[in-house]
Amino acid sequence: MRIEINQEKFSEIVARAQSTLERKSTRPILENILLQASDDEIILSATDLRVSLTQKTKCKVIESGSISVPGRKLNEIIREIPRGDVSVESKDNNWITISSGNSTFHIPGTASEEFPSFPTPPNNFIEVDPSSFDNMFTKTIFASSNDETRMYLCGVYLKEFKDEDDNSFLKVVATDGHRLSLIDTLLKNGLSLFSDGIIVPKKGVVEIKSIISTAGDSLEIACADGRIYVRSEDILLSVTLIDASFPNYSQVIPKQTGGGVLIACEPFKDALRRVSILSDQETRSVLVEIEGSVMKLYSDNPGMGDAEETLSVDYSGEPVKVAFNANYLMDILKVMDDEEMRMEVKDSLSPTLFIGTDKDSSFLSVVMPMRVD
Amino acid sequence: MRIEINQEKFSEIVARAQSTLERKSTRPILENILLQASDDEIILSATDLRVSLTQKTKCKVIESGSISVPGRKLNEIIREIPRGDVSVESKDNNWITISSGNSTFHIPGTASEEFPSFPTPPNNFIEVDPSSFDNMFTKTIFASSNDETRMYLCGVYLKEFKDEDDNSFLKVVATDGHRLSLIDTLLKNGLSLFSDGIIVPKKGVVEIKSIISTAGDSLEIACADGRIYVRSEDILLSVTLIDASFPNYSQVIPKQTGGGVLIACEPFKDALRRVSILSDQETRSVLVEIEGSVMKLYSDNPGMGDAEETLSVDYSGEPVKVAFNANYLMDILKVMDDEEMRMEVKDSLSPTLFIGTDKDSSFLSVVMPMRVD
Repeated sequence: MRIEINQEKFSEIVARAQSTLERKSTRPILENILLQASDDEIILSATDLRVSLTQKTKCKVIESGSISVPGRKLNEIIREIPRGDVSVESKDNNWITISSGNSTFHIPGTASEEFPSFPTPPNNFIEVDPSSFDNMFTKTIFASSNDETRMYLCGVYLKEFKDEDDNSFLKVVATDGHRLSLIDTLLKNGLSLFSDGIIVPKKGVVEIKSIISTAGDSLEIACADGRIYVRSEDILLSVTLIDASFPNYSQVIPKQTGGGVLIACEPFKDALRRVSILSDQETRSVLVEIEGSVMKLYSDNPGMGDAEETLSVDYSGEPVKVAFNANYLMDILKVMDDEEMRMEVKDSLSPTLFIGTDKDSSFLSVVMPMRVD
Repeated sequence: MRIEINQEKFSEIVARAQSTLERKSTRPILENILLQASDDEIILSATDLRVSLTQKTKCKVIESGSISVPGRKLNEIIREIPRGDVSVESKDNNWITISSGNSTFHIPGTASEEFPSFPTPPNNFIEVDPSSFDNMFTKTIFASSNDETRMYLCGVYLKEFKDEDDNSFLKVVATDGHRLSLIDTLLKNGLSLFSDGIIVPKKGVVEIKSIISTAGDSLEIACADGRIYVRSEDILLSVTLIDASFPNYSQVIPKQTGGGVLIACEPFKDALRRVSILSDQETRSVLVEIEGSVMKLYSDNPGMGDAEETLSVDYSGEPVKVAFNANYLMDILKVMDDEEMRMEVKDSLSPTLFIGTDKDSSFLSVVMPMRVD
């Protein structure tokens, strides 16, 4: 294989491929990036076996061929090598020579045959709105679990459904058992990809979001053989889905009453950040007390001190006291795009609802309260 | 004690005091900041017993008094508390109430009597040029040692001397035994503070540099009782000197010939950064080979690959091959302000000199070569 390629263009796709790889893999070949040159383009592939990324770009191919190269070193070299045309050439012994200007690097590669084979994508890709997908993932991923003994919670659940008027919606949900986030989005045309529901693992969601962030207007999605495929121009990502049933979450979501406490998000976020300075380091417990139009936040960290914040809210229900993990509330506030949100709280023990009031009225979170002593 | 103080002003001096404290001290009182209010000002003090910082600022003192407060929590609270006037009040039980807007914090303090006493600064402060002192520290501190079994190398040595024409110079030196950095600066008036030579510990140098960075034009220095004092407007820093003799370093500095290799710094830095991608992770060894006007840099990391760079230099001596720790050369290049530097190399075993050619002609570094196999 021998190619010549613009340093900036090459550096961009190598960096992206490298970010897909595991930092430290049990199989060295999985720390490699596969280069395949033919006709007038080069294809770069990287995989951790569950998430696989393929990118292609035009370049001058002097000799077709393929080779796999240690990703981290390749990335460091291409990032630092002089601007201009970079020459990449593989030898029979699988060593690669990379040169540009007065710089020359030799690094050992591995025969392309040893690189894992990639799944073949199906043909039925469907075009979707990138920003809408990005938003659905942003509003949910934080609530998914890191507990690998419950793999079915370590991702984001996508399911298509129809309402009584036969409109198609995509419901995206994540939960770690202590809190849950959910968003419904109207689909212009049904996708019929997620009718059975799929669970995309956390790392896959992060990679899809990363592609969307540079995707421009075009994003296509397909599902086949337990994988989700995401395509944008010259990038193709495949993610192995979590092979499990998502729990029946609807029972933990309290029925919306449309009432509750109306809270201005920014002041609430500021107050929460301050009061949690003195919350317990482990539990992050913050007590919320609402009576009439006054909301008070308290934290108490024995030996370290206590803090109190007062906020104005809109509320006409019974006085209520309830404690939460401050981080869970912060996570919701970080992604809430509305200026105000509604908090539907029944008592100090029942799951509490947080709902957007405007653009985010189809985004809701449920948080389990902590025990108040 | 009870004061009212502007949040921004308070936040700035609390953050500075906090940065002087040890992250984790064996004596909890050393994680505290002392607040002393009287007349119309507050004095903040922080110490790790070797480096002590005192700052004062105007504020409204409603009740004079003093108290010591956990530094990290105080810093977090003051940084996040609502803008405007902050009220700080201590109670008889040593608890402190901090409030602003609708935020109130209570944290436990410690009686000011338990706070370590501070050294009394002498009267003979001498005004010095802040940027010139900053430069002397920048050009040397990187070469000092971290090896606490050789404390006398864990700092920067300052000594005043006179040349044959009776001009006063300040010589600043640091070495870790593998390399040495030295800079001479002409003093307009003799300081007669450093005639015996002092060793300022690394952390002290960092703190002095931090004060200089915000000092404006005024900086005063004094030495007494084994300490150096640095004063700038309302800030006073005292640093306990390292009580040891600095080694006789002059014997390791080769005599300057004025010849050697003339190297353009920027291209050298770029080439060095690239070639060291494939240098051994431990030794960071890079081989430098010079013949006529061609300098080649090589690295070789068995199993990982090798790299080669070619540079144009100005040299008319015998061909020479010498290996260095790439990090040591990088450290010099990072602080070298001249476009070109001179490298006086004798052979592959002798200490090699690196000298500025213009503004930095009084800044030199010596690096011990590594063995070439």
